[in-house]
Amino acid sequence: MNGLALGTIHPTAIISEQARLGSGVSIGANCIVYDNVEIGDGTVLGPNSILGEPLAAYYRDAAYDNPPLRIGRHNLFRAGAIVYAGSTTGDGVEFGHRVTVREQTEIGSHARIGTLCDIQGYCRIGTYSRLHSNVHIGQKSVVGEFVWIFPYVVLTNDPQPPSDILHGVVVDDFAVIATQAVVIAGVRIGRDALVGASAMVNKDVDPESVVVGVPARKLGSVRDIKSALNGEPAYPWREHFDRGMPWQGIGYEAWSQQRHAAAAALAAD
Amino acid sequence: MNGLALGTIHPTAIISEQARLGSGVSIGANCIVYDNVEIGDGTVLGPNSILGEPLAAYYRDAAYDNPPLRIGRHNLFRAGAIVYAGSTTGDGVEFGHRVTVREQTEIGSHARIGTLCDIQGYCRIGTYSRLHSNVHIGQKSVVGEFVWIFPYVVLTNDPQPPSDILHGVVVDDFAVIATQAVVIAGVRIGRDALVGASAMVNKDVDPESVVVGVPARKLGSVRDIKSALNGEPAYPWREHFDRGMPWQGIGYEAWSQQRHAAAAALAAD
Amino acid sequence: MNGLALGTIHPTAIISEQARLGSGVSIGANCIVYDNVEIGDGTVLGPNSILGEPLAAYYRDAAYDNPPLRIGRHNLFRAGAIVYAGSTTGDGVEFGHRVTVREQTEIGSHARIGTLCDIQGYCRIGTYSRLHSNVHIGQKSVVGEFVWIFPYVVLTNDPQPPSDILHGVVVDDFAVIATQAVVIAGVRIGRDALVGASAMVNKDVDPESVVVGVPARKLGSVRDIKSALNGEPAYPWREHFDRGMPWQGIGYEAWSQQRHAAAAALAAD
Repeated sequence: MNGLALGTIHPTAIISEQARLGSGVSIGANCIVYDNVEIGDGTVLGPNSILGEPLAAYYRDAAYDNPPLRIGRHNLFRAGAIVYAGSTTGDGVEFGHRVTVREQTEIGSHARIGTLCDIQGYCRIGTYSRLHSNVHIGQKSVVGEFVWIFPYVVLTNDPQPPSDILHGVVVDDFAVIATQAVVIAGVRIGRDALVGASAMVNKDVDPESVVVGVPARKLGSVRDIKSALNGEPAYPWREHFDRGMPWQGIGYEAWSQQRHAAAAALAAD
Repeated sequence: MNGLALGTIHPTAIISEQARLGSGVSIGANCIVYDNVEIGDGTVLGPNSILGEPLAAYYRDAAYDNPPLRIGRHNLFRAGAIVYAGSTTGDGVEFGHRVTVREQTEIGSHARIGTLCDIQGYCRIGTYSRLHSNVHIGQKSVVGEFVWIFPYVVLTNDPQPPSDILHGVVVDDFAVIATQAVVIAGVRIGRDALVGASAMVNKDVDPESVVVGVPARKLGSVRDIKSALNGEPAYPWREHFDRGMPWQGIGYEAWSQQRHAAAAALAAD
Repeated sequence: MNGLALGTIHPTAIISEQARLGSGVSIGANCIVYDNVEIGDGTVLGPNSILGEPLAAYYRDAAYDNPPLRIGRHNLFRAGAIVYAGSTTGDGVEFGHRVTVREQTEIGSHARIGTLCDIQGYCRIGTYSRLHSNVHIGQKSVVGEFVWIFPYVVLTNDPQPPSDILHGVVVDDFAVIATQAVVIAGVRIGRDALVGASAMVNKDVDPESVVVGVPARKLGSVRDIKSALNGEPAYPWREHFDRGMPWQGIGYEAWSQQRHAAAAALAAD
C-alpha cells in the first residue's frame, strides 16, 4: 500500500512542525497538515488531504494565526479531505472522499460524512449522524444526533437571498431527509420526521411527520409507513434498524433505558 | 506538458511494484497506483488520480489483500480519478475530472463518466452509456447500454431509508434521464424511455414513455416529441443522433442489422 | 503555513517554463501549471490546483499546442482548482475549493465561483456575479453581471437530449436563482428576476418576476416580497443589499448614476 501505509506518515506529506500527532496516526501521500492541528491517536488521513486549511483572513492579515483544528481519535478520512482550521471532530468519525468542512464546525463522535459533502462552517452535526454523498450543509445549520441525510440534500440559510440574514436549519434527532430535498432557511425538521425525496420544505415539519412535494405538504405520520420487507411499521427507524448504531444487538428501547439510567446515576452522584 | 506527458510516467507518481502497466501507458503527476492494479495499453491517467483505492476492510484487517482492479485499453481518465480495487473498465472508457468509482463496479467499453460522478459500487454501466457531470449511481444499480444520464441525477437504492433493504434501479438500453431527476429504489426505467428534468420517479416507467413531475406521471410517448430543429420526431434518439455512437455515419438501423447478422453468424458456427 | 506560503512558489509545484508569473504570485504545494499560462500579479493558487489543463485535442493530436490561459491580478483560488487552457479571468476573482472551469470561458472581475462548481466551457460569467457551491453551468451559458446562483443549480443547454442542438441559458443582470433550480436549454431569465428553490424553469422569465415550482409558474413581482427582517420590500436586492458590491456604503442608485456619468463623460471625449 504505497500511498497510505497504516501507522506511518508518507514521506511526501507536508506537516507543520506546529502540528501535534497522536500515536499510531497514519498520513497518506501528498497530504498537507497546517499549523495548529491536533490529530488523535489512531486516526487515518487518506492521500491528498488538507487539515487546518487557513481561513479567508490569512490572505488579508499579516498577523494571521491559524486557529486550532482538533481531530478526534480513530477518525478515518478517505482521500481528498479538506478541513479548515477552527473546527473539531469527535472520536470514530468517518469521511468519504473529497469532503470539505469549513471553520467553526463541530462534528460529533461516530458521525459519517459522505463523499463530496460540503459543510459550510458554523455548524453542528450530532453523534452518529449519517450524511450520504454530496450533502450541502449551509452555515449555522444544527443537525441533531442519529440524523440521516441522503445525497444532494441542501440545508439553506438565507430566507431572501442575497441578504445579511442567516437563519440556519435545525434538524432534530432521528429525523431522515431523503435524496435531493431542499430545506429552506430557518425551518425546523422535527424528531423522527421523514422528508421525501425531491421535497422543497419551506415550513416546519412536526415530529414523526412525513412531508413530500414542491412545496412540501404533510402526508401523514411516519408510523403509517409499512415495510416493503414484512408489512410491519418501518418508522421510527430507530425501532427497526440498528446497523452501526450503539443499540446494535440490544434494540433501541433497552439502550435508551440504559442511557437514561446512566445519566440519572451520574446526576445523583 | 509538465504534469502529464503522453507515453511517460511522471516521476512524482507513486506506483506499486505489484501493479502491471501495459505499453504506452501515461501517468500524470502525484498519481497513486496501489497493489494489484492492471492498466491496459495506451491508457492515460490524469494527475492526482488514485487507482486501486483500498476497500474499507483494509483499515480493520491486517491480512487484507487488495482485490484486482482491471482498467482496459485506451481509457482516458482526467485529473483526480479515484477508482477502488475490485472493479473493471472496458476499452476506450473516458472519465471527466474527480470521478469516484467504488468496488465491484463494471464499466462497459466506450462509456463516459462525467466530472464529479460518484459511482457507489456493486453497479454495472453498459457500453457507450454517457453519464454527464455529478451523476450519483447508488449501489446495486444496473445501467444498460447507450443510456444517457444528465447532471445531478441520483439513482437511489433504499426504499425506506435507513434500512437493510437494497433494491437497485434498473435503466434499460437507450433510456434518457434528464437533469436532476431522482429515481427511487427498485424502479425500472424502460428501453427508449425519457425522464424529464427534476422528476422524482417512484414507479416503473414503460418503454418509450415520457414521464415528468414530482412524483413523475406519464405524459405520453417519446415518439410524440418533435425536434426544435426541424419539426421531425426527436425520439427514440438512436434513430436521430449518432455522434460518438457505433452507428455513426451508417444509421442505427443498418448498424443494428449488421450487429444481429454478426451475432447470428457466430451462433451458427 | 507549509502548504501555501504567501508570496512564494512551493517547491513541490510543477510549473512549465512557458508559464508567465506576475509579481507576488503564490503557488501552493503539488500544483501544476502547464504551458502557456499567464498569472497576474498577486494571485494566489491553493494547493493541488491545475492551471492550463489541456483540451481533449491534446490526447489525439501530436501537433497540439496549449492555448493561452490568462488569470487576472489578485485572484484567489482555493485548493484543488482545475482551469483549462483557453479561458480568462478578470481581476479579483475568487474560487472556493475544487472548482472546474473548462475552455473558452470568460469570468469577469470580482466574480466568485463556489466550491465544486463545474463550468463546462464556452461560457461567460459577468463581473461581481456569485456562484455558490456546486453550481453547474452548461456550455454556451451567458451569465450577466451581479447575478446570484445558489447551490446545485444547473443551467442546461440541450432541448432534446441527446442532440446536436446547443442552446445556452441567458441570465440577465441582477437575477437570482435559488437552490437546486434547473433552467432548461435556451431559456432567458430576466433582469432582477427571482427563481425559487427547486424550480424547473422551461420558459422565459420576465424581468422582476418571481417563478416557483415544477414546472415553474409566475407567482408575481419581486417587488411584492417583504423582508423577514423589517417588512420592507426585499427586492430588487440591489436596492437593499451591498456587501461586497461596488455600491457598498453609497447605495445602488448613487453608484449607478456615477457609473452612467462616467460612461457619458468617456463617450463625450
